Amino acid sequence: SEENMAQKCEGGPRVSGQKNTSSLEGKVFTRAQVATHTTLEDRIWVTYQDGVYDITEFIANHPGGSDKIRLAAGKAIDPFWRIYQQHLNTAYPKEVLDGMKIGTLDPAEPKVEMDASDPYASDPDRHPGLLFHNTKPCNAELPRELQIENWCTPSPLWFIRHHHPVPVVDAETYRLTIDCSQINTPPLSLTLKDLKERFNSTTVTTTIQCGGNRRDGFNPIAKTSGIPWGFGAVSTAKWTGVLLRDVLLYSGHLTPQLAEAGAVQHIQFKAIDGLEASIPIEKALNPYGDTLLAFEMNDEPLPPEHGYPVRVVVPGHVGVRNVKWVSDIVASSEEAEGPWQRGIAYKGFAPGVKDFKDVDISKVLSMQDTPVQSLIVEPGNGYKLVVDEDDEDDETVTLKGWAWSGGGRGIVRVDVTNDNGVSWHTAELLDGKDQNPLRAWAWTFWEAEVPIPEGSAEKGFAEFHCRATDASYATQPEKAECIWNLRGLNNTSWHKITVQVTHESDDDDDDADEE
Amino acid sequence: SEENMAQKCEGGPRVSGQKNTSSLEGKVFTRAQVATHTTLEDRIWVTYQDGVYDITEFIANHPGGSDKIRLAAGKAIDPFWRIYQQHLNTAYPKEVLDGMKIGTLDPAEPKVEMDASDPYASDPDRHPGLLFHNTKPCNAELPRELQIENWCTPSPLWFIRHHHPVPVVDAETYRLTIDCSQINTPPLSLTLKDLKERFNSTTVTTTIQCGGNRRDGFNPIAKTSGIPWGFGAVSTAKWTGVLLRDVLLYSGHLTPQLAEAGAVQHIQFKAIDGLEASIPIEKALNPYGDTLLAFEMNDEPLPPEHGYPVRVVVPGHVGVRNVKWVSDIVASSEEAEGPWQRGIAYKGFAPGVKDFKDVDISKVLSMQDTPVQSLIVEPGNGYKLVVDEDDEDDETVTLKGWAWSGGGRGIVRVDVTNDNGVSWHTAELLDGKDQNPLRAWAWTFWEAEVPIPEGSAEKGFAEFHCRATDASYATQPEKAECIWNLRGLNNTSWHKITVQVTHESDDDDDDADEE
Repeated sequence: SEENMAQKCEGGPRVSGQKNTSSLEGKVFTRAQVATHTTLEDRIWVTYQDGVYDITEFIANHPGGSDKIRLAAGKAIDPFWRIYQQHLNTAYPKEVLDGMKIGTLDPAEPKVEMDASDPYASDPDRHPGLLFHNTKPCNAELPRELQIENWCTPSPLWFIRHHHPVPVVDAETYRLTIDCSQINTPPLSLTLKDLKERFNSTTVTTTIQCGGNRRDGFNPIAKTSGIPWGFGAVSTAKWTGVLLRDVLLYSGHLTPQLAEAGAVQHIQFKAIDGLEASIPIEKALNPYGDTLLAFEMNDEPLPPEHGYPVRVVVPGHVGVRNVKWVSDIVASSEEAEGPWQRGIAYKGFAPGVKDFKDVDISKVLSMQDTPVQSLIVEPGNGYKLVVDEDDEDDETVTLKGWAWSGGGRGIVRVDVTNDNGVSWHTAELLDGKDQNPLRAWAWTFWEAEVPIPEGSAEKGFAEFHCRATDASYATQPEKAECIWNLRGLNNTSWHKITVQVTHESDDDDDDADEE
Repeated sequence: SEENMAQKCEGGPRVSGQKNTSSLEGKVFTRAQVATHTTLEDRIWVTYQDGVYDITEFIANHPGGSDKIRLAAGKAIDPFWRIYQQHLNTAYPKEVLDGMKIGTLDPAEPKVEMDASDPYASDPDRHPGLLFHNTKPCNAELPRELQIENWCTPSPLWFIRHHHPVPVVDAETYRLTIDCSQINTPPLSLTLKDLKERFNSTTVTTTIQCGGNRRDGFNPIAKTSGIPWGFGAVSTAKWTGVLLRDVLLYSGHLTPQLAEAGAVQHIQFKAIDGLEASIPIEKALNPYGDTLLAFEMNDEPLPPEHGYPVRVVVPGHVGVRNVKWVSDIVASSEEAEGPWQRGIAYKGFAPGVKDFKDVDISKVLSMQDTPVQSLIVEPGNGYKLVVDEDDEDDETVTLKGWAWSGGGRGIVRVDVTNDNGVSWHTAELLDGKDQNPLRAWAWTFWEAEVPIPEGSAEKGFAEFHCRATDASYATQPEKAECIWNLRGLNNTSWHKITVQVTHESDDDDDDADEE
């Protein structure tokens, strides 16, 4: 087959830096064939529009970093270029790409047929750079390589945590119902236009993190239940909408005084996809709580994936409370029904609880506000560091990452250790550091230049951990073992990376062992 | 001298359990002589009214626990009986005491002369059970033995953290000035009567903890600056007063909207003793923030020691923001001036900061809300546990303590480990557990029955640690080393006790080695 032939050609001898793909020019490939070319060994192919390109030799020279371009390996590069528009602003990137063309996509390739009876048939197309755990329902991470490229995560790269198919909603017929019958006011129904016209718009930038982010770090200790997220179940966006408390006041005259008199303790949200969740009245009516009914994400209408036409944004609270496609808001004396509020899904247990048999779930607090978190994003775990043998004592590595805490608590400090907590190097805080320390709803980026410990090259590796301190001066626990819990929630243990350290400098192959 | 004679008498042979003090009946002692009798070796004396009693033999049988009665060793027992009124409700305690009488206080003993030029001359008399670090100004801890006797700490036992002499304030001439000139309203002056009559009274129970509580636990790592508090710089009371936000609204029409328009970001408090501190507007105007101008403590007018006639109570914030003897309230765009707000006093640094030379203090957040804390209160460190040699595997010890977090975050769980964090035993939560998890301003008591690790008697000791998890699912860091900071603030590392474990059962001397 053509595919086999292509592989054979690549297997032949080649001169480093020289493109030996001329024999493939003018060839036609299927997307499936392109998809098999994802490693340096098999060569790395991408498509752009209908062209197919072998970018293997270019990867080490990619101005944006080799780890980022490799996210497109075997896939279309178009969705990446749409987000990182520097590729489209000048002719140069396309010219470089043209030099690596090896063929075109087969125009006769049949489109993937959608089964109309599949409830997921109408789910949107998704960015190929996401790390998919499932597609039905879709659960996907923001990849490490793109986490700190933009303080506001581009919407197509946002992590996705769905429980059902994405609902198809007609904004014209959409209605948001506000039920304050608990305090004896009649229900009210609002259109999207009502929301936009009757209330002042507010913009809030928040980081949203799934309660199970970093769950995968618990599983080597003992299996937890739930999606084995790495550390990409988190993203940040600028949201525009109206304040929930304004809508509650308008719809039901719901003030703190009336809420107390009427025993309203929770505001419940019901979504078009069936999800239900609630937040405490103290958050909903706090004038500094900034809970939004949002209709814009990063200055555009909400994408269907993220809640079109209206979603709830609960700054500083765990992801699941930020209910997408919200259709009903209920002022109640009780939490919302269902597994995501009253079930085990977002309840934390002690490390000793190994099953749910003898547990009274109703007595365990369902997550709302969340603890302080931080990650080393660059370099990636397994990165290969080359140190100069003659100047080894002065060698440093630059670590970069993000930190965030729930409850609006700003990041006071990020510290990094190269000796497992004996000594700490304080990072410089970057984007996000100027947020109000009590309403710091979005993450803070950081960077630290840290010495590579003496003897690392002899050992072959070095380990680095980070931990953040928030505005309540809370900090992260050291060991995942001590906070392990059956549902795998709130893994905020010190984040560790192990990098390879070597003396030999192999310029051609620096990136070969990155993960 | 009489004192020498008394000591000689005690030095003679005695039969365990038999009172051999008859030779001292009718003797006369000075308070200084009584004060030398504080150990089992020197015998333990107390006074009650004008009587002197040798309670050495009674200690092990004290129904309230031997550790508590020993707090009065060498001192007057009257202030303890006034707090623990079960001693006064029946004749029995006095009858028991009368059987141990050895003499009377010398009526001719001269009173201690106060130097009228001493600015501390008018400081109030203080409870002898407190652990005094200083008296001028007074800094004293709530002793371990009395921390969990009452959920609301009796006012005379409250920890004291003063910076100056206690001001003597005349409630008739007292004025509270509210300055909202930042939003162009004229200043207002209120009398104590105004406060009580013009506003609704509110009652809030809060735990107040000094930011330096447990500082002493840092000092073995490296010296910190400040009072070397054990873990008693903490107490709990029921406060009655008026809501700060009601007073700000009444005095200056200060709503969140006007505050934002007028750039009011902090509410400053100035005290009659010269202390200044401030809290963020987000706390002051939060309808669920519960910040009080209090005039009652535990159902009585504030004692002079704790802020008479009016103090600020800022639930969930570090002690120093709860300004006593408040005279001026200022709405401002800036934090308060002075060392307790803008200086180093309540600012946290990284472990690597060993002096203040190269530190830009203005960039470090001054403490407000504080992180989750927990303590093992009973048994005390060094307690002697006797285990049955034949049934050693089933032996347990009951640990008791308290847990608390800032920001109103309730205690979700307290876990205890007997193996340095490998396994955890979840405690039962007691008083305080039913607080609203978002407005849990006061501590939660807990109790856990924990196995004594196998082989402890052979080793001679066992170690136990506790740590709590709060409503944001934040938990405590393991090691004090990793959170050590130059000012010794926020020591919330796992609290450890070491108990002695032995096989031999020596009933007569069980308590001899308690600390």
